[in-house]
Amino acid sequence: MIKTEFFTLEAKSGQARAGTVRTAHGDIQTPIFMPVGTRGTVKGLWQEDLERLKADVILGNTYHLYLRPGHKLIEKMGGLHKWMTWDKPILTDSGGFQVFSLGDLNKVTEEGVIFQSHIDGSRHMLSPEKSMEIQKSLGSDIVMIFDECPKLPATKETLRTSMELTLRWAKRCRDYELQDHQNLFCIVQGGLFEDLREECMERLQELDFPGFALGGLSVGEKNEEMVSFLDSFAPKMPEDKPRYLMGVGKPIDVLNGIRAGIDMFDCVLPTRNARNGQFLTKHGPLNIKKARFKEDPLPPDPTCECPVCKRYSRSYVRHLFNVGEYLAGQLITYHNLHFYLNMVREARTAIFEDKFEIYYKEFVKDYNSQLHI
Amino acid sequence: MIKTEFFTLEAKSGQARAGTVRTAHGDIQTPIFMPVGTRGTVKGLWQEDLERLKADVILGNTYHLYLRPGHKLIEKMGGLHKWMTWDKPILTDSGGFQVFSLGDLNKVTEEGVIFQSHIDGSRHMLSPEKSMEIQKSLGSDIVMIFDECPKLPATKETLRTSMELTLRWAKRCRDYELQDHQNLFCIVQGGLFEDLREECMERLQELDFPGFALGGLSVGEKNEEMVSFLDSFAPKMPEDKPRYLMGVGKPIDVLNGIRAGIDMFDCVLPTRNARNGQFLTKHGPLNIKKARFKEDPLPPDPTCECPVCKRYSRSYVRHLFNVGEYLAGQLITYHNLHFYLNMVREARTAIFEDKFEIYYKEFVKDYNSQLHI
Repeated sequence: MIKTEFFTLEAKSGQARAGTVRTAHGDIQTPIFMPVGTRGTVKGLWQEDLERLKADVILGNTYHLYLRPGHKLIEKMGGLHKWMTWDKPILTDSGGFQVFSLGDLNKVTEEGVIFQSHIDGSRHMLSPEKSMEIQKSLGSDIVMIFDECPKLPATKETLRTSMELTLRWAKRCRDYELQDHQNLFCIVQGGLFEDLREECMERLQELDFPGFALGGLSVGEKNEEMVSFLDSFAPKMPEDKPRYLMGVGKPIDVLNGIRAGIDMFDCVLPTRNARNGQFLTKHGPLNIKKARFKEDPLPPDPTCECPVCKRYSRSYVRHLFNVGEYLAGQLITYHNLHFYLNMVREARTAIFEDKFEIYYKEFVKDYNSQLHI
Repeated sequence: MIKTEFFTLEAKSGQARAGTVRTAHGDIQTPIFMPVGTRGTVKGLWQEDLERLKADVILGNTYHLYLRPGHKLIEKMGGLHKWMTWDKPILTDSGGFQVFSLGDLNKVTEEGVIFQSHIDGSRHMLSPEKSMEIQKSLGSDIVMIFDECPKLPATKETLRTSMELTLRWAKRCRDYELQDHQNLFCIVQGGLFEDLREECMERLQELDFPGFALGGLSVGEKNEEMVSFLDSFAPKMPEDKPRYLMGVGKPIDVLNGIRAGIDMFDCVLPTRNARNGQFLTKHGPLNIKKARFKEDPLPPDPTCECPVCKRYSRSYVRHLFNVGEYLAGQLITYHNLHFYLNMVREARTAIFEDKFEIYYKEFVKDYNSQLHI
């Protein structure tokens, strides 16, 4: 099948794809879910845990690492890989999404975005060049262009104006010289308007990026709208390049993305919900806070093979959560990432066997049974 | 040397002792430090971490587990070992110390102590029988008698009155039927008055307990007073039984205790200080918050063989601590327990080689160099 130095498409089942992304820090087998390590750590896990989970790639956040401890410090310490002792691939976002959602009083100009830090209110400017400078210092394997992220619903006019800005910024990012090992992904915007999205994608293709991301989804639109958009749009994306759906999503959202032909995903859901006491299981979410788990000797998910489910009971983890012991968050985070990574590995196997649709339907049926509600 | 079914004294070096305590859940090689697992967990560590640390025995707190989740629940779940999935020895305290230090408005009567929960203000009674009932439900291998814990300084008269009460309570504890595998330790009180302590110990000996603890130390007296008391008193304690110094202490306090002939120790210091950013090292404490560690690529303790020091840098852990990532506490907790457990294992080896005094002096000299201050 299609093979470039950076990406190999190895199998298809319907629109679902299995492939390999090659980076200086190792291969990423797709479809893949990337755990989010916002501030140089996936909350509550040792790097050893991530290795044990066989996480192929993790995500770091440009906005957070720029503010604390600062990209210059990380660069001085040898880059993000060395500093956090993670020698497998890292993808960094551009900081764009965070300046729009976390920073206060932001002001968008042609140059970039002026924003106030959510930590101390200090004023900063993030621009295409600044975002590239930071990500270059971090030394991530996959770098994202700096884009504007409009909230949905938005008018077509708003979205077009924003898209034009994103395209001008994309060119400025492409013109910035990164480290040799870094790969710059572009981000297709345009809301739910397929014509806008197609135009955006075509104009980005002229700039020749090694990977294509979809931004601005799961930001306010209905879930069916996203699924229907993905089903129609994803198959039209360049076949010889990895396709990344940013910030999405729930387990079934990820499977819907794979089904439409997306290769890469990230989301804070498995880690954030863990800290709120939510185990994700084959039969839907399980809220460990519930009184009925008080004396329940079963593992959180009896069908799961992870070390948490092999050892600890619902009764014990519920107690930890209820008294505020952080170990609850640590254990549930581990389990939830195991759940996501196991899901995408199973999907990959099903694609190679050309049985993705069967896998998908069984997964959705089990998951929607919501046994633990 | 001296051998009973429960305890074997295997070597001596000066007054320092090496031995083995035998329990239904495995042997404890002494001298030993017991990590504190207040609410059924050593904060921030998986049970797998404790196994990796080769912790021979951990401590559970009767007061906390009685209030949440309740001893009856733990009993129903098969006991503390099974519930928290820890199949090595567990020692539980009696709850006495906590009702005096954490409970509000406590009232001491001959029957026991009436106190208000520090969680919700509800009223409870802890008595010798109630403490035994709770510890029986928990199923710990070593059970502590319920004693009164007077604060120092205190008058001799106050201490004598308190000691007499503790002796009457000790007898009531001894008369309570525990589980077959449980071993009940008595607690010698009497402040810094050796004649009171000796009288207390002699009268406890008549009640025939398998182990002797020293309570009421490190509760307000000067450090030199404790050391001098231990040097004089510990060697007079029964030689054929394990000797446990409760709630002590800093690394050098533990070594001073070993030097005086104490076998068992517990303290929240290595775990609590970890959560405040303090690494304990061969050359004294290292406060990771300090600005000078910002760009320091060295391991927290370059002489340490633990997985934290083998992998992570001061710069990285400082960042984690400063932004409030709990991973800092997890890593420092692991290191600090490694430090304590390594220290008592080295002490044990030195005792077998009859070189404890040399080990002690080198350790104290290195530690007091306070390199990291």
